[in-house]
Amino acid sequence: MTDPTDLTAPRPDRRPGGRTARVRARVLDAVRAELTESGHEGLTMEGVATRAGVHRTTVYRRWRDVGGLLADVIDAAGETDWRPPDTGSLRGDLTALNQEIQESLVVRPSFAVALMAASFHSEQAARAQTRLWADRYAQCEVLVERAVARGELPARDADARSLLIAATAPLYHQLVLLRADPDPRLPERAAAAAVLAAAAGAFSGRREEST
Amino acid sequence: MTDPTDLTAPRPDRRPGGRTARVRARVLDAVRAELTESGHEGLTMEGVATRAGVHRTTVYRRWRDVGGLLADVIDAAGETDWRPPDTGSLRGDLTALNQEIQESLVVRPSFAVALMAASFHSEQAARAQTRLWADRYAQCEVLVERAVARGELPARDADARSLLIAATAPLYHQLVLLRADPDPRLPERAAAAAVLAAAAGAFSGRREEST
Repeated sequence: MTDPTDLTAPRPDRRPGGRTARVRARVLDAVRAELTESGHEGLTMEGVATRAGVHRTTVYRRWRDVGGLLADVIDAAGETDWRPPDTGSLRGDLTALNQEIQESLVVRPSFAVALMAASFHSEQAARAQTRLWADRYAQCEVLVERAVARGELPARDADARSLLIAATAPLYHQLVLLRADPDPRLPERAAAAAVLAAAAGAFSGRREEST
Repeated sequence: MTDPTDLTAPRPDRRPGGRTARVRARVLDAVRAELTESGHEGLTMEGVATRAGVHRTTVYRRWRDVGGLLADVIDAAGETDWRPPDTGSLRGDLTALNQEIQESLVVRPSFAVALMAASFHSEQAARAQTRLWADRYAQCEVLVERAVARGELPARDADARSLLIAATAPLYHQLVLLRADPDPRLPERAAAAAVLAAAAGAFSGRREEST
């Protein structure tokens, strides 16, 4: 699984060859480094151009402004070859997913948290972030489909997205908004709670309509 | 002559409703108005002083910087006479709580969202926000105690805070981080899912230890 916060790893998503692709990779690496070091407030077109070793007119022409850089770095995170976990059980899958989320949020400095902070201040970054999250939750719907196929969940029309949000939201809430100390049991506990709620029919469309 | 707004000096007008309290109320009203209109990036000591009709040296002396203003406006939110809902059932209480949260997050402009955005950029505001949230969740633990007393939840040592976070986190996640369109059913659905999980023992300390 590719860790979008690992700036040193070879990036499999980088198209081989092509000067444009190489320039983009250098510029986005520079954006990630500047963001994690000093947050979006320290992000400038000039700083990124200098760090990337790319002429600043190129950076202005291609990305226009800091919002354009932020949006592109978020879009690039969505282009990596990420796959949802496949552990053999819904609880195991959601726990593994939550562990990944927790790791990305507790690492200091956190690229993920810097992006969330930035998206409060750039409409373009906010839209890119919303797209990325929508993609990731859509990719994870397979976890719920597999659980239904294995008979772990009733085959009633489960609202996969609501289940996934119930499982993952406590991580973001505790770590990003409440700024709690990381609890190593939280990924598993939040996953287990969502699975218990799902097994009791909490995310079944039919149940909601009948109440 | 000493500054009548200097809170460090013991003065007869420090009583609630006195001149010092009135100055604080005017300044914090101005902070709230500036924050909701233009976000924390538009917040300046001068802008607040002008809007409040208070001399700027007073604002600097009492609050030092923008972080001080933000922290005090958050502390003031914690001083209001807020009471958790009491509807007669845990599901009803959590739904009412979520409805309150949803309203505060979807109103445009949202003071609550502006504070969250600001707390990414001011350590002082972040600490005040963490304190406020800790207080609110502590106040809400009575909802879980009442539910246990009514026999709605098993009397095993329920982790009230985890239950409350499971119930409320999806609201913040959907509306603040994912920027989803408000779903009028979400407050009730998130509350119902948390209650089902709780009834299945998801937040019982004993269950966690035995697994």
